[in-house]
Amino acid sequence: MPQFPATDLNRVRRLPDRAHYDTETIYPILDEGLICHVAFLEDNQPFVIPSLYARLDDTILLHGAKASRMLKYIQNGGSVSIAVSMIDGLVIARSAFHHSVNFRSVVLFGKGRLIDDYDEKMHAMEVITNHILHGRWDDARKPNRKEMNATSVVSIPIDSATAKIRNAPPGDDEADYQLPVWAGVLPLRQQAFAPINDPLLTVDVPIPGYVADYKR
Amino acid sequence: MPQFPATDLNRVRRLPDRAHYDTETIYPILDEGLICHVAFLEDNQPFVIPSLYARLDDTILLHGAKASRMLKYIQNGGSVSIAVSMIDGLVIARSAFHHSVNFRSVVLFGKGRLIDDYDEKMHAMEVITNHILHGRWDDARKPNRKEMNATSVVSIPIDSATAKIRNAPPGDDEADYQLPVWAGVLPLRQQAFAPINDPLLTVDVPIPGYVADYKR
Repeated sequence: MPQFPATDLNRVRRLPDRAHYDTETIYPILDEGLICHVAFLEDNQPFVIPSLYARLDDTILLHGAKASRMLKYIQNGGSVSIAVSMIDGLVIARSAFHHSVNFRSVVLFGKGRLIDDYDEKMHAMEVITNHILHGRWDDARKPNRKEMNATSVVSIPIDSATAKIRNAPPGDDEADYQLPVWAGVLPLRQQAFAPINDPLLTVDVPIPGYVADYKR
Repeated sequence: MPQFPATDLNRVRRLPDRAHYDTETIYPILDEGLICHVAFLEDNQPFVIPSLYARLDDTILLHGAKASRMLKYIQNGGSVSIAVSMIDGLVIARSAFHHSVNFRSVVLFGKGRLIDDYDEKMHAMEVITNHILHGRWDDARKPNRKEMNATSVVSIPIDSATAKIRNAPPGDDEADYQLPVWAGVLPLRQQAFAPINDPLLTVDVPIPGYVADYKR
């Protein structure tokens, strides 16, 4: 399976057994996540902001308003770091020190470019829309020229990436297993609840299956 | 109520009506979030990594292994940006362009310091442990000298911060409200499921109330 080489950029130095460099581990995490966090620079000051995104082949797509300083930084050739993180549970150990979380996360690096071509940009909008809600693009009113002009979309080839995964019971010190303290995992998951109709719905349309049966 | 001044660092330029600069809005988001994403620099390359954290008064506490490059950057005086983001729902509009998410997020900025004092560091460990799971500190075996020595804890005064909140139905273009397309919000929430006993539990201890009734 394809691997990202472990370099100074992406090598996990702490608890390296939790690290994965193969696309078969990394891409499903990128596809399941809903938002990412993007780190970029302005005047040598790091910024991190949450953003919707999508993976398209070996690239990450980000979109936003033309004026966005993050998108300007990227289209000017700046290198970004992007994290996608999902929490799967609290790891409740006997010792305070060994408390942790079960999680799946990816941290990746790359330099992007503005998507100028209209058709490529329209396709990127489709991929981003379907990343939010799989199947939505076919039903939604497509972007018009004005909306396309107001939006910047960047494509960032994934130059380097690592996944980190913890999925295990607590790991306590040997002596602590005798303590009269409960230990275990509290599973956490992002759950969908009953869809809420837009109060301005003027037509009688059933809730689409991809909303009613939403799962990531 | 105390406010962070809107400066070039934290002013929200896009959709400024979603921005909040007061601690009464910002601190509850920091207290409800479980993990944060920290942006820092190494050789002028931005990095973002997920981390556990806690708020203590007007500061953010981060901890980790002594060798962590993020913690070293912070203790060397580097300025970080930290984001805490919670997704509350998918905003499903009639137009692809107006798809969004309902969310609450905080982005903050500050420069930290290593906590050297043993008692202050122990208190920070308590605050971080209880941030993961409120009430856990009293039951857990406290960190010993070896664990304390292996751990770095930094305190980052919040110099600047902004909250962004979206909590509303879709906002479509006037003409689109007549389209035969379902629109609304799909609520999302991080839910806890039944606790899983550590398979190595050797004592018969009931599941603590703060685990069984966990809520953030």
